[in-house]
Order: sequence, then C-alpha cells, then structure tokens
Amino acid sequence: MKKVLILPGDGIGPEITTQAERVLDAVNQHFNLGISTQHGLVGGAAIDVTGVPLPGETLAAATESDAILLGAVGGPKWDNLEMALRPEKGLLGLRSGLELFANLRPAILYPQLADASSLKPEIVSGLDILIVRELTGGIYFGQPRGIRTLNDGERQGYNTYVYSESEIERIGRVAFEAAQKRGGKLCSIDKHNVLEVTVLWREVMDRLAPEYPDVQLSHMYVDNAAMQLVRAPKQFDVMVTGNMFGDILSDCAAMLTGSIGMLPSASLDANNKGMYEPVHGSAPDIAGQDLANPLATILSVSMMLRYSFGAVDAAAAIEQAVSSVLNQGVRTGDILSEGCEKTGTRGMGDAVVKEL
Amino acid sequence: MKKVLILPGDGIGPEITTQAERVLDAVNQHFNLGISTQHGLVGGAAIDVTGVPLPGETLAAATESDAILLGAVGGPKWDNLEMALRPEKGLLGLRSGLELFANLRPAILYPQLADASSLKPEIVSGLDILIVRELTGGIYFGQPRGIRTLNDGERQGYNTYVYSESEIERIGRVAFEAAQKRGGKLCSIDKHNVLEVTVLWREVMDRLAPEYPDVQLSHMYVDNAAMQLVRAPKQFDVMVTGNMFGDILSDCAAMLTGSIGMLPSASLDANNKGMYEPVHGSAPDIAGQDLANPLATILSVSMMLRYSFGAVDAAAAIEQAVSSVLNQGVRTGDILSEGCEKTGTRGMGDAVVKEL
Ligand SMILES: CC(C)[C@H](C(=O)O)[C@@H](O)C(=O)O
Ligand SMILES: CC(C)[C@H](C(=O)O)[C@@H](O)C(=O)O
Repeated sequence: MKKVLILPGDGIGPEITTQAERVLDAVNQHFNLGISTQHGLVGGAAIDVTGVPLPGETLAAATESDAILLGAVGGPKWDNLEMALRPEKGLLGLRSGLELFANLRPAILYPQLADASSLKPEIVSGLDILIVRELTGGIYFGQPRGIRTLNDGERQGYNTYVYSESEIERIGRVAFEAAQKRGGKLCSIDKHNVLEVTVLWREVMDRLAPEYPDVQLSHMYVDNAAMQLVRAPKQFDVMVTGNMFGDILSDCAAMLTGSIGMLPSASLDANNKGMYEPVHGSAPDIAGQDLANPLATILSVSMMLRYSFGAVDAAAAIEQAVSSVLNQGVRTGDILSEGCEKTGTRGMGDAVVKEL
Repeated sequence: MKKVLILPGDGIGPEITTQAERVLDAVNQHFNLGISTQHGLVGGAAIDVTGVPLPGETLAAATESDAILLGAVGGPKWDNLEMALRPEKGLLGLRSGLELFANLRPAILYPQLADASSLKPEIVSGLDILIVRELTGGIYFGQPRGIRTLNDGERQGYNTYVYSESEIERIGRVAFEAAQKRGGKLCSIDKHNVLEVTVLWREVMDRLAPEYPDVQLSHMYVDNAAMQLVRAPKQFDVMVTGNMFGDILSDCAAMLTGSIGMLPSASLDANNKGMYEPVHGSAPDIAGQDLANPLATILSVSMMLRYSFGAVDAAAAIEQAVSSVLNQGVRTGDILSEGCEKTGTRGMGDAVVKEL
C-alpha cells in the first residue's frame, strides 16, 4: 500500500487538489496502483484551525507518507502575522523537515498553448527547460538571521546565504543525472564574481563534471541567466542553482511559457520521496469561484507517479489525457484563446477524468 | 571647471568610451560646459599594469572628479584570479569608495528598435521603466563572508545579506523622488515572506510613503516581479530594490527591450556626483573589432550631463542626435534589422557627432 498525503492549503488550493485527487483515484483504480489517500492541514488553513502553519500532526503524516500532493499556501488574510507563524512557514517546514532538497521545475511550452506566451513564437516554440533548484539550504534557511538593534539605536535586518560542499554536491548530482536523461547540457547559475558562497558552488560543480562525461557543464552569472532566459531560452536544457536564485529564475522561466497554470513541480529527498505541487500560487483573488486551472496540479500527480512510484504508464496516461483535452479546445480562463471552449476548475477535471 | 574621469576598462570598454568622449567633447564645446577630462585605469586593464583592479591613483582621481564615465570591466583573461584581485572588485571598490548608493537603470524601448525585442510588440511597445537599485550594501558588501572549513573538515561558503534602516531609507527617498518626476508609481521588490532583511526593507518603504502622497507605493515578491516583467512589463513605472535583486531584475528588464546595447545607467551619491556606464558588459568576444554599439555609453554621457551637471540642454541634444541617427537607419550589428545601414563602433560615433 502506498500512502499519499493531500494538503490542499489555501486560496484555490482546495479546488485544484480536489480535481487532481479525482484523477489520482481514476488511475489508481485503472492501473491498480494500490495508493491510499489521506488529507491534512497546512498553511493558512492550518493556522485557522490550530494556530500554526505546520501542525505536528501534518508533519508526522507527511513523514509516514510515500508522497505528498500540495495545493498552494498563503493569502492576504495571514499577511500581517509575524514571520514564524505565516502560511509560507508551513511549506518551508515541510521542505526542510522532510529534507526535500531537490526541486525540479520543468518549463514546457505546450504547442496547443503557444499563443499564450508574451514572447514571439520563434523564441519559445518547442521550449523545454528543466530547472533544478536546491530547496532546503541557502539563504532561505541560513543562520544567523533576524532584525537587530545596533548600538546607535538603528535597526538592521540580516540573513545568511550559506552552502556546504555536501549540500552542493547532492543537488549537483541530481542535476547531472537529469541532464544525462535529457539533452546532456547542464548550466550552473551563480554569482561567482561577487559571492564567495557561489565560488564554492562553482568549484563543486566543476569537480563533479568528470564523473558525468556525457554531460556538457557550463556556468553563467545569475544576472546574465535572467537576460538569456528572456533573449533565447531555448539555449538551455537543464539549469541548476541555489534556493533564492532558483526561486526567481524558475518563475521567470515558467512565465516564458505564458501558461503558469499548466506547470507542475516535484521536490524530492535522497530516496525519491517527494512533495508535488503546481508552480503557481494560491491566487486568493479567484479562490472558490471555479475559475482556477487544475492542470498544473493534475500534472503534479503525473510527476508523483513517475518519480516517487515509478508508475510510468499511469503517469503517461495522465499526460496523454491532458494533451487530448487541450486538443479538444477545452480551456480554463487563464489559457483561453479564440475558438476554444471555456470551462471551470471542475469542468476541466471532468474532461481529464473522462479522457482517462 | 568640471572634472570628468574616463575609465575605459576592459573588452569593448576602450572603443565605446572613445566614441562617447568624442560626443562629450562636441557638446562641451558647443554648450560651453567647461568640462575637462582625464583618464584612468580600472579592472583588468589596471591589473595588467599595477597588479590591482583599483589602483589608489584611480580612486583618488575619482574622488576629485565631479563625474566618472566607465566603459566595462572583466574578461576571461582575469577569471581565475582570487576574488579580491578580480576586475569586478575595481568596479565594486569605486561604488563603495565613492558611496554611489543609488543605481538608476532605465529600461526603455526605442520605437525605432521595437522589432529587436524577443517579446511580442504589444507587450513591450512604449516600455519605459526605471529600476532603482541599491548599490553599496546588501549581500554584495555584507560581512561576514568567505569560505571556511567546518570541524568535520567540510568546507562551507557564506555571505551576509544585510541592510540598516538608514541605508533603506536613503535609497527609498531616491526612488520616491524619481517616481514623483515620472508616472507616480513605485513598486518595491522584496522577499518579505522569507527574508527578515526584507521585512525591514518593506517596513521602511511603508514608513516613507506618507511623505510622498503623490506616489502610489506597492510591494511585490522578487519571484513574482521576475514573472511580471516577462508577462506585462508596462505595469511598472519605478521599481526599487536591493543590490542583488536589482542586479537580476534590471538585467531582465533591460533585455525586454531587445537592445541592451542602447541602455545607459547612473550610480549616484548623496550629492548627485555620479559614475555613468552602459548596462551591458565588456563583451570580450567582440573586443577590438569595431563591432560594439557605443550608444549606451554615449547615452551615459547624456545621463551625466543631466544628473551631475544639470546641463539639460546638452543632455537633450545628445538624446536628440541618437534618435536622429536611429531614424536615419544607421545601426551597429546588435540592433541591425532589414533595410538598415550597418556600421561599426567608430561609424556610429561619427554619425552621432555629425548630428550634434
Ligand atoms: C511561498 C514561497 C515561500 C515559495 C518560495 O519562495 O520558495 C514559493 O515562491 C515557491 O517558489 O515555491
Ligand atoms: C560586474 C558585476 C560585479 C556587476 C554587478 O553585479 O553589480 C554587474 O553585473 C552590474 O550589474 O553592474
């Protein structure tokens, strides 16, 4: 029996995970996967009930599960809480508590949705990048951190950007291996000309390279990477970077496709146990209105089946179903274009389940 | 007598500053500005002669000057030096030595070059954003920093992201004042949901806002800002952010225009003394071949005249001349399009000087 914990979270989270769970149920039956599901609270939804964004019960359930499906966390309702009690700390606590250090974020342009990009078609057609982001270290978790008062009474805010060799090595290996299975090109992103922590980063990447002779490693400064993503994104295959740069660049890359409502992500530990979630956020402005696109969450289920359960057929069936639905012209509002049929969150879930 | 120090630097730096100096000489005579120029060494060029990227003589000359025109620094030749001796340290030393804390980076789409953008015309036509980047603090200069060996023998790299209230306040005021003179909108970029240093950042920006009732202040997370720049950049007027985020976002914004060879920047101290430089880098691959576009450096001269010398007419004359030259269809290779006349670095300088 494989256990999946579903954490709907906030905003559109409950709606999109509901549809994704229907899809999971359908493939579970059809492919006889032996998956059982369970639900838990995280983020603002957990704060409202228990006072904290990551209740002990949720972390315990997550630890015992084989995989986790997360909707999204956060919203204006909880924006003025102190940092330790904010919804985001639920997400960050899961990442670090489960040591999900490898965040895989594909940025793929669906040919059916090519129009949705703000970039010219020739720049993005066929785009298929994988961003590998370190997720449990760097400035997100570095100590010391805080706001202190100096001797002259002035306050100062500070955070620490820190990586050890072993942290860099393990994310580097994930990225090299991903590049081996894809186009064989890996670009490591740093700020080697300014930040010592990324001098070590580059050194470790260079040290790993000879172990992966079939991968061509290159290095790029983060500012240049942001430019190159806009200028000529198809030059990239796999990109690997730290937590903060990865946060920025993966969102930039996702937006190149014009359909962030389509993009799933995986956050894996050393044994391919993973948390799966859409790249987009909780979109509080459209929550509860049957407007959100559930496909990123549905495709997150497909990533789960592939990475955590090795259920390649079931994963492919979901991807196939999504592709058929897009071919039929069924669209939620965020990816609507002329001549297509507009549907809601539930309608999109129906369409995918029907295809399966 | 106003003193301008010219620091050509590396790569294409000497070629582009030569053309910019011709333009400066021309307006100096025509508008009787009383400017005298002097030259100095910085970056790799300084390393080759003196062994250090910022010789004491250069810093002294810069301190005595009223404004500085810089080409660009860096190149593969010096890439393997230890960090303290790299060309970039020359640039960083000038910024901090002269307290040039306010970096102004306009991202403007020239109508004549609208085709050059990788974005769809309707997304970028008329684009005019000003990014205000803090330049002498944050993680670029924060202590402690380095690479240390832990007890278990493993090495760890670390940097410190730090801002005090007064540092945030002074860059905030520059940004609010810039917004007052432009469209009245200021978007402050932070990672308030994760980094304490940016919690303080947001607090100070909010505290300043009531003093500028004619400016509408908003806040955005840096990852979302990277997405929104790609999705709908015209939503922005002025953006203000710290040193590292500003490095990334300003390069991203510059690339939206498709003509980074056109974009100047200013780095100012509290008295509008400034260093002016193109946004692009030293482009070692095309150095010395009369291929580089000198317009970003020429427009940096125009920014100098405007911000440091209040010579508004002379500044406008340069901008006017550049615009005429573009209208004539004269183009360097980086901005070439069909039906235009291709010229080199020197030819472009000739064309602008002739127009003046
Ligand atoms: C919600 C936030 C803490 C999170 C992050 O910064 O990692 C999000 O932006 C993401 O990328 O998953
Ligand atoms: C050359 C480098 C140190 C510099 C920076 O990171 O500030 C450059 O990228 C810039 O933006 O001016």
